[in-house]
Amino acid sequence: MPTTIQPTSNQSPPTTAGLLQSLYAPVAEELAAVEALLKAELRSDYPFVDELVRYGCLLGGKRLRPALLLLTAKAVGGQITHEHRTLATVNTRWDNEASVLLGDFLFTHAFYLASTLDSVLGCRLIGRATNIVCEGELRQKGSRGNFQLGEAEYLEIVEAKTAELTAVSCRLGAMFAGADEALAEQMDGFGRDLGIAFQIADDLLDVQGEEKATGKSLGTDLEKQKPTLPIIRALHFASEAKRRELIELLSGDDRQPAALAPYLEACGAIEYTRTRALSYAHRARRRLDGLPGGPSRDVLAMMSEFVVNRSM
Amino acid sequence: MPTTIQPTSNQSPPTTAGLLQSLYAPVAEELAAVEALLKAELRSDYPFVDELVRYGCLLGGKRLRPALLLLTAKAVGGQITHEHRTLATVNTRWDNEASVLLGDFLFTHAFYLASTLDSVLGCRLIGRATNIVCEGELRQKGSRGNFQLGEAEYLEIVEAKTAELTAVSCRLGAMFAGADEALAEQMDGFGRDLGIAFQIADDLLDVQGEEKATGKSLGTDLEKQKPTLPIIRALHFASEAKRRELIELLSGDDRQPAALAPYLEACGAIEYTRTRALSYAHRARRRLDGLPGGPSRDVLAMMSEFVVNRSM
Repeated sequence: MPTTIQPTSNQSPPTTAGLLQSLYAPVAEELAAVEALLKAELRSDYPFVDELVRYGCLLGGKRLRPALLLLTAKAVGGQITHEHRTLATVNTRWDNEASVLLGDFLFTHAFYLASTLDSVLGCRLIGRATNIVCEGELRQKGSRGNFQLGEAEYLEIVEAKTAELTAVSCRLGAMFAGADEALAEQMDGFGRDLGIAFQIADDLLDVQGEEKATGKSLGTDLEKQKPTLPIIRALHFASEAKRRELIELLSGDDRQPAALAPYLEACGAIEYTRTRALSYAHRARRRLDGLPGGPSRDVLAMMSEFVVNRSM
Repeated sequence: MPTTIQPTSNQSPPTTAGLLQSLYAPVAEELAAVEALLKAELRSDYPFVDELVRYGCLLGGKRLRPALLLLTAKAVGGQITHEHRTLATVNTRWDNEASVLLGDFLFTHAFYLASTLDSVLGCRLIGRATNIVCEGELRQKGSRGNFQLGEAEYLEIVEAKTAELTAVSCRLGAMFAGADEALAEQMDGFGRDLGIAFQIADDLLDVQGEEKATGKSLGTDLEKQKPTLPIIRALHFASEAKRRELIELLSGDDRQPAALAPYLEACGAIEYTRTRALSYAHRARRRLDGLPGGPSRDVLAMMSEFVVNRSM
C-alpha cells in the first residue's frame, strides 16, 4: 500500500487548476503583480510580434515556480520585494512550448529583467540553473529510445531538467528575503524534492490511460520514447520474454497507454512509481520543519501534496 | 559605378577566412584565450552532451563579434581584461545553427559567464541586445513572403537582428576599457553600421549565382522567402508585368538565384544594394575618426572593408 500524506490543515488536497488559485491565496496579489510585470516587459511595438507574444507568453497554468519563489520568501519570514517579483518572471520560459523564437524571446526578456536588479546574484543563480536544465534536456534527448537507462540515471536527468528550476525558485525567494546560506540551502532542497516528485507524478499521468482533466495529451512521453520511471521499472523486473515484448511495443508505431498497462501492472510498476513520488514529496515536506508557522509555510506543505495528487 | 573603399594600409582587403585570421593579429592571443574560456565553460561530464557541444559550439568561422569587442577595447586606448574575455564568449550563440537545445545550452552558458563578473552591467547590456535581436527575428519571420515590405522596414529588421549584436560588442569592449558614455556611443554606432553593411552584403551573396568560397548554400534566403534588399528594390522598380512575374517566381517551388538574375540586373538592384552596403561601411569607418592611431584601429577600419568585400 502506498504511503499517504496527511493534509496539514483540514482542507482536502486540491486537484484542479481552480483550487490551485485558492491555494496561492497568501501570494495572490504578488502573483498578479508578477504577471503584470511580465506583460509590460513583453510588449512589442510591432503588431505581429505583440500578438504572437500575448498569445504565447503567460506565466503558465500552474504558475508553480513563481508561486514557490514568492511563498518561500514569506515562509522564511521575509517580505516580498521588487527583487522577488522581478525574479519570479524568469520562471516563464521553460514551460513555453511555442516556437523556438518565442522561447528565445521569453528567455532573453526574463534574463534582462533579472539584470535590471542592482545585484548580479539573480543572474548568476538563474544562469547556473539554466545551464543545468539545458544539460539535463540534452541528456534526456540522448536517452530517447534507450531501454537500458537505469533508475539512478533517470533521477539525475529529472533533477537537472525539472528540479533545478524549482530548487532555484525557492533559493531565490529565500536569499532575497534575507535568509542565510543554511536556510537558502534548506529551501533549495525543498524545491528540489518537490520538483522530482512533480516529475515522477508527471510520468505516471503520461502512462495512465484514463482521461485526465488536463489539456496535455496522454502518452506524450511514450510518443517521444522517453524512458519514464514506470517503464524503466517494468523493463527491469519483467521476465526476458515480457521484456522483449515490451521493447517491441515501445519501439513500434502505435505506443498507446492502454497497450502498456498490463506490463506495468504485472510487476507493480505503477505502485512503485507512485511510492517513489510520495517519498520525495514527504522529504520535501520534512524540509519545512523549523520554519516559522504561517499560511505561506502551510501552502508550501500543501504544494508537496498537490504535486503528487494532481490530475493536470 | 559603385563607390569603392580605399584600404587604410597597403595590404589588399582580405577575402578569405585565412586572411581574417591574420587581420585579427592585434588580438590573436586574446581570441585564443576567449576560445579556451568558452571550451572550458561548455565542458560536460556526460559524454553524449560533451560530444554534441564540442561539435556544435565554436566561436564561429568569422569570429567577427568577439574580435570587434576585443579590438574596440584596444582601439579606445584601454587594456583587454578578464571582463572583455568573458563577455566576448557571449558572441557564440547567435551564429549557431545546430539544434534548439544546443542553442539554448550556448545561450545560458554565455549568460552565466557574463553573470560571473562583479558588475551586472554586462548582463544588462547583453540582455537588452538579445531582447532586440529576438524581436527582430520574430519580425523577420513575420515578413517572410511579404512582397510589400519596404526598404525602411527592412533596415529596421536588419538593425535589430544583426546590427544590435555587433553594436553591443563594440559598446562592451569600450565600456569595460574605461571609455566614457560618448565614446561608448560612438563605438556602438561603428558596430551598428558595420553590422548593417555586413547583412546587406550577405543579402547580395545570397542572390548572386556564382559559386562562393563559403560553406553556406546559396539562395538560403530565397528558399525561406525572406525579402532581401535586392529583391525589395527590384519589386519596387519593376514594371507591373515584371513585378507579377517576379512575385510568381519568388512564390514558386524552384527559387534559384539564376532565374532571378535578369530581374535584378534589369533595374540595377544589385548595383544599388552594393552601394547601400558600401555607404554603411563608409559611415562605420568615419566613426573611427578621432580614435588614437594604432593597429587595433587599423583593423577595425579594415573590417569595415572586409564585411562588404567578403566571399564568405
